[in-house]
Formats: sequence, structure tokens, C-alpha cells
Amino acid sequence: MKQVKEYIAQNQERFLEELFELLRIPSISAQSDHKPDMIRCAEWLRQSLLAAGADRAEVMPTAGNPVVYGEKIIDRSKPTVLVYGHYDVMPVDPVDEWKSDPFEPVIKDNRIWCRGADDDKGQSFMHVKAFEAMVRTGTLPCNVKFMLEGEEEIGSASLYKWCEENRQMLSSDIILVSDTSLIGWDTPSITCGLRGLTYMQVEVTGPNKDLHSGLYGGAVANPANVLAKLIAGLTDEKGRITIPGFYDGVRELSAEERTDFNKAPFDLERYKQALDIDEIEGEEGYTTIERTGVRPSLDVNGIWGGYTGEGTKTIIPGKASAKISMRLVPGQDWVRIGELFKAHIEKIAPKSVKVKVETLHGGAPYVTPSDLPAYQAAVRAMETTFGKKPLPYYSGGSIPIISAFERILGVKSILMGFGLDCDAIHSPNESYGLDNFFRGIETLPYFYRYFSDNK
Amino acid sequence: MKQVKEYIAQNQERFLEELFELLRIPSISAQSDHKPDMIRCAEWLRQSLLAAGADRAEVMPTAGNPVVYGEKIIDRSKPTVLVYGHYDVMPVDPVDEWKSDPFEPVIKDNRIWCRGADDDKGQSFMHVKAFEAMVRTGTLPCNVKFMLEGEEEIGSASLYKWCEENRQMLSSDIILVSDTSLIGWDTPSITCGLRGLTYMQVEVTGPNKDLHSGLYGGAVANPANVLAKLIAGLTDEKGRITIPGFYDGVRELSAEERTDFNKAPFDLERYKQALDIDEIEGEEGYTTIERTGVRPSLDVNGIWGGYTGEGTKTIIPGKASAKISMRLVPGQDWVRIGELFKAHIEKIAPKSVKVKVETLHGGAPYVTPSDLPAYQAAVRAMETTFGKKPLPYYSGGSIPIISAFERILGVKSILMGFGLDCDAIHSPNESYGLDNFFRGIETLPYFYRYFSDNK
Repeated sequence: MKQVKEYIAQNQERFLEELFELLRIPSISAQSDHKPDMIRCAEWLRQSLLAAGADRAEVMPTAGNPVVYGEKIIDRSKPTVLVYGHYDVMPVDPVDEWKSDPFEPVIKDNRIWCRGADDDKGQSFMHVKAFEAMVRTGTLPCNVKFMLEGEEEIGSASLYKWCEENRQMLSSDIILVSDTSLIGWDTPSITCGLRGLTYMQVEVTGPNKDLHSGLYGGAVANPANVLAKLIAGLTDEKGRITIPGFYDGVRELSAEERTDFNKAPFDLERYKQALDIDEIEGEEGYTTIERTGVRPSLDVNGIWGGYTGEGTKTIIPGKASAKISMRLVPGQDWVRIGELFKAHIEKIAPKSVKVKVETLHGGAPYVTPSDLPAYQAAVRAMETTFGKKPLPYYSGGSIPIISAFERILGVKSILMGFGLDCDAIHSPNESYGLDNFFRGIETLPYFYRYFSDNK
Repeated sequence: MKQVKEYIAQNQERFLEELFELLRIPSISAQSDHKPDMIRCAEWLRQSLLAAGADRAEVMPTAGNPVVYGEKIIDRSKPTVLVYGHYDVMPVDPVDEWKSDPFEPVIKDNRIWCRGADDDKGQSFMHVKAFEAMVRTGTLPCNVKFMLEGEEEIGSASLYKWCEENRQMLSSDIILVSDTSLIGWDTPSITCGLRGLTYMQVEVTGPNKDLHSGLYGGAVANPANVLAKLIAGLTDEKGRITIPGFYDGVRELSAEERTDFNKAPFDLERYKQALDIDEIEGEEGYTTIERTGVRPSLDVNGIWGGYTGEGTKTIIPGKASAKISMRLVPGQDWVRIGELFKAHIEKIAPKSVKVKVETLHGGAPYVTPSDLPAYQAAVRAMETTFGKKPLPYYSGGSIPIISAFERILGVKSILMGFGLDCDAIHSPNESYGLDNFFRGIETLPYFYRYFSDNK
């Protein structure tokens, strides 16, 4: 593996220049005016795969944003790794909280600052460059396929159908993904569990127009007050979610499992300090690691209604809305949870308003078994470059498509991410460590080697 | 009074053209970028008062928007009417709900459609034209003073001090105001009660940035969820406000008063139909007329936090905010209510967030006694032009400055407004009936006559 390491060292500067080109494309999937940027980004990646050594690379259309597919087949009798990543990024608002242009990468404090620097352009691009390094040094030990989608941040809507239509082309032995974080730079980890997600939107409509709050105040239901009551009622004073049936199927950990689970290092004071909060808050009777790893949650992601400008306006808003999402754990079906949520809101809403409840997107929870050979290969690869055995980690996040891969393609995934919590993905001032980027490129070829040897 | 009526008839078209010029000035006091429009509007009114026959008219600076003062003194031994009105208007958002340009008046269905058509440019301008008609026909029976302010919609902040500094200049026997509505075109009324107002803003801050709702969901307090709980807790299931001390000093009506009070015509089915709602909602044990007339209320006027754009964004917002106002009745002190609100929110907020609570503006409730000679003059004037004796009306709205006039200037006010509920003041598509506008101009000179005769 010496040649690979040297190749990476010799090409560091070019790798960064290329990544910066990719980062400059504002590929925000949630906002339809960025549609041309999605196409541009996909085409850029197609060329990048060809330049890295792919035999074939295509921008494949879907009903939404295209999927970039690429492959290099060296020998059909050898195993095949299917790399998954996404080139779409989150919106950048509130824009005024960014310390530099969200789409002009800058290097500062040994980090790359830009939307997508980590999630997931930075992490996906590590795979392209690791692939290039193996191809150019003649060390690629197996077949490689890439699928890079443009809708992960909005629920991967088109990828499900695309996978179903391309089952044959996507045949593989393992799916390899870098879209997660390490517990810490000194505590490498591999994500073995992901929470599922059900993302809802609730719209409460009262009077047919904004009303004068003096002339009508006290006599007519205010949709914003009603929405607040509906949201407040979704959790109780113990931090439990009150939707009937919500916890059906959720398994409680055994005492032994809990002990193991809480072995991951966690420093509450540093956690609070990093977030600038005086107290944490969550479901009674669980630790923070359990609350995000194995317990479901419910969060308002956005809320709006009435006058939100400067000064005052004395109105009863005609409408108020909220985006509310729930993280799910094994045993919970995301579609069913959406139905329960909708039925519950419709039941508890007063007759003085109309409510509209819709599911925007979602996905099932996922678990990687620790006895999977590919998981063992990933453990060895990280142990080699980090000098420490990585811990299994149960992330609170969701990559809804991962459980679908198993269902549609019949293939398990390895979630070997190199991000850190401080990368502030989804927030203003996202960043990715230069060390993380290059350590990732260096680690991946070891995975290919150990995985192929094992097969 | 025949000459006055003829003069109005002969000048109808010009009166409207002038009003349209006034309406075209987008004098939104809540938005600081409209500052130049405020100045322009004040200067326009100054010239309009001089043209109507004032001896003197000035644009008088304040710390905020200027006050337009004008007067015509015919004889110091005669009584003096002080006309109050405001030239500032409410913001126009949501702009896309307007059927025509908010600042380009159009006449349709015998109504003037424009922001400010009623509140309060249309109603204030009736006074200028009624004054002109009396001056030009030699029938003005007393002295007249005008004060037209530019901050009513944002709490009249500068007018309090301006009144204190100009007490002598403003000496008068009665203050006459048209900034309220009739119960209906067939049910004329004079507003005898106004609710007070305390307008608050609450900001809930959690983590120091937006967080990924997967990685942190369930473990960290979500400011939007907390805000919803805080708001939900401000009212109970009987529609009562739960802030300790809130109802102290609020007097319950006697059985007899309630009977009288509920004599005003009210058609619940028409009310619901006009607002497009299936059920009304309010404090248990009170009628709709009581709920808006003599009971306090609490409304969210605006709420915002997190991602409110198209699609989805999986974040825990770092902040969430709401504008919340309370309408008050006699016995409640608006400053004290603001303090109680702040103390209550600070007490019930969990330690997992920080809250900032501020009073944006407010004003005291007001009542006009029905045995006041000026009130009797107003009743006779309206009876003359409407052919029906007007009812006393307790409006749910607030004109905070009215109670301050009594405190600072020692003078009572008559609230003789000519608007209708359907005028949609403060909403998109505000309008004012042409009949209302001209009936107002016709009625006001009768008030001057009867009031001067009585004195």
C-alpha cells in the first residue's frame, strides 16, 4: 500500500483544487431554482469519475435530480463494492450567520469551510480520489461501482425507483458509504445504527384572512395559538411522545446492552459548552447517548405564521404552519408513524380551525450486524490508519435510503464516515478537516484490500 | 346646513381625487425604509389643511415621525374641537394576497380599495373636508384644531411627549376621532369603550446554532418546541389567561349590564360565514360581544423559527420567536400586565433554554361616559344623517393614545367612526365604502353645530 500512500501525498494539492470546484456548485436540492446547478454538478462528477479511471460513467435522469453512475469492472469473478454518496447539499439560510460565502471554499484552521465540505461532497469525493489512487497505482483489488444521487437531503425520492429499475447494473457484494461522523478524531468509529425519519408538515387555517386582533381577539380561534397547543401536546412532561401507538414495537435495551452502549466516551460538560446551553433536555430515564442512538424523538424543524417583520402588527393570522419531524428506531415503520401523527393531530385539533397534515418524506431505521465480513474489513482498515480499533456507533441521524438498499438490492451497507460533530453539517459555517479528508482517502484502499482478501 | 350639503355634493369628485393622492403615499410606520414617505405624507397633509381653510398648519418634528398640527381660531370665547387622526398605515404583507396594488386606490363595488382607505387616511380626511365645507360656506360654529400623527400603528410612541410639550396649544373642549367602525350600515353606533393593549416579543434561544435534528434530536431542548409549550400554557382549556394576577382589577358585569350589553345585534351564523370558520372559540361563559367588548384576550400575532422554505430541512433551530399581544379592559394597567407576562414566561421557561421577553408597546383601556354633552351631540348628529339613533358600542380594538389624552390634556374623546367590519383594516384588500366616506363628511358638521349650541 506504499505506492497508494505516495500517490495521495503527491496529488494532495490537485485533489483539493478539484474538491473546491465541486463545492462551488450551489447544488441545493430543496430549492427548485437550483435545478440547473444540480445538472451541472452531476455532469462535473461524471467527468471526474472518468478522469479517475472509470470505464464508464453516466448522468442518468430520474423524475427528480439525476443519479451519477460509474463503474470499473476488472474481473467479474472478483467481489464488487458499490459506493454510495450524494452531491446535493442543504439550504444555506440563515445566510447572514455565515462567516464566509457558503459556496466559496476557504481553508482556515486546517479546515475547509463551505456548504457541503463534509456533507456529502467532501466525503463522497474521498471515494473518487481513493479509487483514482488505486487505479493509477495498479492496486485496485476488485470491481467498483459508484452511485451518487442528488436528492438525499430531500428524502432520495427518485433513487428508490432508480434502484428498482437498475437492480442488475447495481449488483454488488457490499455498499460503502461515507456520510456519517466519527465519535471523535481520537475515538474512531463505524456507524452501525441509523434512526429512521418521518417528516411532516402541519398547516392550521382559521379565518379566511388575517384579522384585526382587537376587533376579533378573544372571540375567534387564533391558528398560531392553536398550532402551539397542538405541538405542545405532542410531548409530555417526561419528554415522551404522546401520539397513540408511537412506541409500539420499540424494543427496550437489556441492562447489559445499556452498559455496553454507554461505553462510548461522552463528556456532558463539554457537550453543553459546545452548544452553549445550561441544561440538556430529553426523555426521562435515558442517557444522552441512548436518547440519540436508540430512542425516537420529535422536533419542530420550522414554524411560521402571522407578522414576523420589524415592529408590531396587531393581527390574528389566518394561517400558521410547522414542519415537524420524528426520528425513529428499529421496530417503527416510518409510513405508519406518519399515519398515526396525522390521525392524532386531526383528532386533537379543535373544530374552530381546519388542519392539513402531510408527510413530506421519510425512511426506515437501519442496523449493520457486527459479524458481517465487510464490517470486520472496515474495522481493520480504520485500525490501520488511526492506530486504534474503531467503536461501533449508533447515530441519531437518518439516511433513509440505506434500509431501502437492503430491501431493493439485497445488499448491506457499511457506514464508514470520517466527519466530526464540529463540522456543523446542516448549519451555517459547515466545515471539514483537511486531516479528515486525507485520512479518509488513505483508509478506503485498506478497506478494499481487506474486503477482497476475505471474500 | 343646506349649503354644507350642497358644497359637499358639488365637490365630491375633487374630494376623492385628493384622497387618492393621500392614499398613494406608502406611509408604513412599522418599516423604517418608509421614513421618507412619512415626511412626504405629513407635508401633503399640512398643505391640505391650509387649502381647506386653516389659519396655521405645521409639520412638527418628534423623535419619530412628525405630527401635523393645524388650527382655525374664529373666536376664543367659543368652544374648541380638537380633531385627532393618523396618517400612518399598517404593513401590506402578505402582498400576494392583494387583488390590486396596495398603494394604488381603485373604485370597485362602490368602495375604495387601498391600504389606509379606511384606517385611518380615509376617516381622517373626512374631517379635513368637513372642515373645508364649513369654512367655505361660512357655517363653522367654533374653533377647530387638528393633530394628525404618524405612529398610531406602532404605538404612538412620540405623541405622548409631544402632547405634554404642547398642552397649551392643544387646549380644547373635546377631542373628536374617526378611527373606529359602525356596528353595521343599518346599525349606526358610537364607540364608548376601547380595550387596552400590551404587545410583547418573546425570543427563545437554545443551542448556539441550528443543529442536525438527527444527531441531536431527543437530547437537546428545541427552542421551537419550547416556545410552543410556553404559548400553549398561557391559556387554559376554558380560554382563560393563566398569567398570575392577569385578571386582578377586572370587573365582572352585573346581570343587568350584561343584558343591556348584549342588545347590540349579533348574528352568529353570518359572523362565522364571513370568516369561513365552523366554530367560534373564546373564554367560557361569555358571549362573542362580551369576549371582544369587555373581556381581555391574548393572541399570537406572529411566530417564526427554523426552516420555513420549500421542502424539508432537518434541523433543530437555534432560536424561535413570537409576537404576542394582550387586549386589556378597564382595571388592567398595560405596563403592569407586561411585567406580569415577562415574569411568568421567565418563571415557566425550562433551564435548557434562554428567554428574552420585551414589551414592544401598549396603552390603557378607555371609556366614554354616555352623559357627556359631546356624546349627546354625536348621537344627535348621527341620528340626523342615518335616521336612526346610534347605539353605544364597546369595541375590542385599542387606540392607546385616547386614554393618554385624558391623562395629559384633561380632555375626553368622542369616537365617531364610520368604518365597517368588512373594510378589512390591517388585512390585505383593505377598503372603505364611498357611502361611508361621504356620510362621514356630511355628519361631522352636525356634530359641530349641536356641540356648539349645547356649550
